[in-house]
Amino acid sequence: MSETLATTVTPAGDPAADPAADPSYDPRTGAQHGSVPHTTPEHVAAILRRAQSAASVIAGTSPATRQGWLTAIADSLRTHEDELVRLAGEETGLGADRLHGELAKCATSTVFYGAVAAEGSYLGAGTEGIGGDSTLSRWNIPLGPVAVFGASNFPFGFGVIGHDVASALGAGCPVIVKAHPAHPRLSVRLAELVSDALERAGAPVGSYALVVGFDAGLQLVDAAEITAIAFTGSQGGGMALVQRAAARGVPVFAEMGTVNPVFVTTDAAADSAQIAAGFVGSFTLGAGQFCTKPGLLFAPAGAGIFDAVRAELRQAPSAPLLTAGIARGYRAGLTGLAEAAAAAGNAGADSAEADSAEADSAEPDSADGYAVDPQAFLVRLEDLHPGSRLLEECFGPVALVCEYEDAAAALDALTRLQPSLVASVFTGGPDDPESAGVVGRLLGQVGRVALNAWPTGVATSWSMQHGGPWPATSRSEATSVGAGALDRFVRPVAVQNADPAHLPAGLHPDNPWRIPRRIDGKLTLPAS
Amino acid sequence: MSETLATTVTPAGDPAADPAADPSYDPRTGAQHGSVPHTTPEHVAAILRRAQSAASVIAGTSPATRQGWLTAIADSLRTHEDELVRLAGEETGLGADRLHGELAKCATSTVFYGAVAAEGSYLGAGTEGIGGDSTLSRWNIPLGPVAVFGASNFPFGFGVIGHDVASALGAGCPVIVKAHPAHPRLSVRLAELVSDALERAGAPVGSYALVVGFDAGLQLVDAAEITAIAFTGSQGGGMALVQRAAARGVPVFAEMGTVNPVFVTTDAAADSAQIAAGFVGSFTLGAGQFCTKPGLLFAPAGAGIFDAVRAELRQAPSAPLLTAGIARGYRAGLTGLAEAAAAAGNAGADSAEADSAEADSAEPDSADGYAVDPQAFLVRLEDLHPGSRLLEECFGPVALVCEYEDAAAALDALTRLQPSLVASVFTGGPDDPESAGVVGRLLGQVGRVALNAWPTGVATSWSMQHGGPWPATSRSEATSVGAGALDRFVRPVAVQNADPAHLPAGLHPDNPWRIPRRIDGKLTLPAS
Repeated sequence: MSETLATTVTPAGDPAADPAADPSYDPRTGAQHGSVPHTTPEHVAAILRRAQSAASVIAGTSPATRQGWLTAIADSLRTHEDELVRLAGEETGLGADRLHGELAKCATSTVFYGAVAAEGSYLGAGTEGIGGDSTLSRWNIPLGPVAVFGASNFPFGFGVIGHDVASALGAGCPVIVKAHPAHPRLSVRLAELVSDALERAGAPVGSYALVVGFDAGLQLVDAAEITAIAFTGSQGGGMALVQRAAARGVPVFAEMGTVNPVFVTTDAAADSAQIAAGFVGSFTLGAGQFCTKPGLLFAPAGAGIFDAVRAELRQAPSAPLLTAGIARGYRAGLTGLAEAAAAAGNAGADSAEADSAEADSAEPDSADGYAVDPQAFLVRLEDLHPGSRLLEECFGPVALVCEYEDAAAALDALTRLQPSLVASVFTGGPDDPESAGVVGRLLGQVGRVALNAWPTGVATSWSMQHGGPWPATSRSEATSVGAGALDRFVRPVAVQNADPAHLPAGLHPDNPWRIPRRIDGKLTLPAS
Repeated sequence: MSETLATTVTPAGDPAADPAADPSYDPRTGAQHGSVPHTTPEHVAAILRRAQSAASVIAGTSPATRQGWLTAIADSLRTHEDELVRLAGEETGLGADRLHGELAKCATSTVFYGAVAAEGSYLGAGTEGIGGDSTLSRWNIPLGPVAVFGASNFPFGFGVIGHDVASALGAGCPVIVKAHPAHPRLSVRLAELVSDALERAGAPVGSYALVVGFDAGLQLVDAAEITAIAFTGSQGGGMALVQRAAARGVPVFAEMGTVNPVFVTTDAAADSAQIAAGFVGSFTLGAGQFCTKPGLLFAPAGAGIFDAVRAELRQAPSAPLLTAGIARGYRAGLTGLAEAAAAAGNAGADSAEADSAEADSAEPDSADGYAVDPQAFLVRLEDLHPGSRLLEECFGPVALVCEYEDAAAALDALTRLQPSLVASVFTGGPDDPESAGVVGRLLGQVGRVALNAWPTGVATSWSMQHGGPWPATSRSEATSVGAGALDRFVRPVAVQNADPAHLPAGLHPDNPWRIPRRIDGKLTLPAS
């Protein structure tokens, strides 16, 4: 199946000598190890044609068939775990424990999306009489080839493999992935494994392919064959995709992320040391490169949360960021936050932090690669106004703490934040009088509220909602994790007066796929 | 509840003397009868504030409560049926039979959306364990105030009342309607009835309001309070709304419509007279002012379908179009079609039609109002190329016939059409060898395929899909008729480790709303 792969790994060389390649860097040292050539326009065009041919074949397969494909991918990932973790470590610097965990979760999630497809609710199948001899049947069909633009920060979770790829395949769509330039060699290897697994499992040629390079990505966005786009990354990148694809009406499911807030009630603040430890652990996880990173914590004044956070930070290790660009962005972001915090009148407890941010803003020693230190800033409630630099996401291990005098005012400030993917609320338990009100207010702002839990854990499950109102995502009805992820890649069709020959097997009278169906208006389950 | 109404009816007058009003015209005569003043910016702002206040109240109501509100609206419509049909006739010229039918269907549909809300599947409710003591619960919450831009052609179906309004209220969203300028007096009266019914049924102030005037509509599109927009109308209008609302990430559900195709197989063409009669009946229904109008019929050559269509047209009466602008557009469209058909080499059977179209292009005698004659053109398969004027929708009682020699080539031509809301396929029955292939091809192009039925009948039911790929609509996953219509106005949220106080009653252990729920991954139905 190597013909569906766009790239081969070239030996290490000077990237300046080959502008048509993605160089591979080790974030731990900054050293380059090889590069991967960009996919040519002709090759992208051939990949698109194959994907379109595959689309109608895949659309005719049963969900259980595609479940088999996804299981085969997961098996291959598990078989090659050590090799993949090593390669990912060389290109992300994320550390073996994190990468083993992410790969294991990815394999489990891939199997889960197969189970969601096989369960069949996503098909939205139903049939009914509509008067006289007329009938109407409805179900969801796959959109067609999907382009996936993966993220730098989850080499296994969101990209060449992971949630977008598995949910699109589960829904019956061929997938073409644009490799993230942060891990080109890993991308090529993963794509080989996925292509081989799909071929062995019987998926048609064209079900899956990888392309490399910015221009190849643009070609996907503009291609008539591409029917939907999934993106995980920055607001700038996501918005540019949304705008470009809008011209031909192609949906872009961009999970961009903003600042995720944490609210600590008065009752919960008693255990400030535990909250501070959890907060630092959460916002420095993966070197703070999570779209679910808690970026702004509201806690009652007088509980000493910010001091406790600073104490925790003294023990927090430095860690390499994913790319030189992210490291530069982080240092610039710290400078901006320090200036904004200082301008906002923070001459007190946080000035030391602001100073250290300034001191940190030089480029790192090359031997340290892209390593940075975690940081926290104290901010005032009244400075969290629309347009403030304090409210922009800063990718990396930095967060803000706001110590409020008045919970209601703090909640009002929360509603001035951009909507976000997730918020955490720490309460004193079910009897905490603030609990229900805070959650109710936050639900209007976010996709998920985590009660007495940190936002960085995202379970792949039936009820997960990993999304949120614009501009946290481009589509508030969508989720990129959990069973609902398949819904992004289908659309409903109805056929009036259909014979069985016009319908998927799931709507045949004997329900061979054993899926939930709405018959004459009544939701019915398959006999168990 | 008159404070929520933006307008009062003024006596007849010269519209030129009052640019800040929508004049009311009778399409049957062209005469003006009164006008309705535009809503001032201050009044629109007040309406928006009330809607936002109402939103959180409505979001806290049970689906059954809102079902009661919708039933109250339907009851009021039925009580005032004669008055409303008379008023609608004066502003649309659509005729009493059609208008009585449309109003009755609207009342039934309004009740249906209440039943869909109460059934509760639209809530997507579920809860599950996600490891340890952690739980995750998910359900759909209403987006907030919805702006509805209604259509000229369905005064009761899509506008001040009808599918968008009822499904948005059913989903828990306040609604602000922009009155269509084609029927301002009817809009005001309908809005009074809806507001009164809602008030009597206990809905909060701000649940519903009407605004009048182009500028008031723009103000809604730009208002921070508006969280979604539903539009039914032209491609130009829909696209403008989509583009404007994109700047702040507000979803626009625009049902715009394109040319809906009809495919007649060789087996089905034997009964050409019946097909021709059905076709003419369908494309002249409501003076051809249906978004589901069949605009292009493919039939095998030699069956004499076009001749039969022309014979039917000789008996088809002229009918007034809805507005002077639509009548002008129709005549210009006929001229364009005649030119395109002539340029495409149609010097034969259709030249008489082309001539009559030319002859018709003058402005009508004022005594005839906006009356026009139905028309048909014969076109060649090879002239149906992208960009051809023949493939643009022409609103009004006109359609094209294409007599094909080769069914496969005709199907290929069909895939060159813009995607559409609906296609009809006429077959010789279940044994027709062409049937399954034609339906399969068309499903990639449309939202609905009607087998051996004309496309103009749209049932309000659980399985209806009234939508289609871009640019037939702006969102191929959406439907503006049927149970799925509610899904446009909600988004999912998840709460981790929720107590009952954080959840809607539908997710309480005893399931008091008696809704389907997914518990630990398993879809469960309420005990019957």
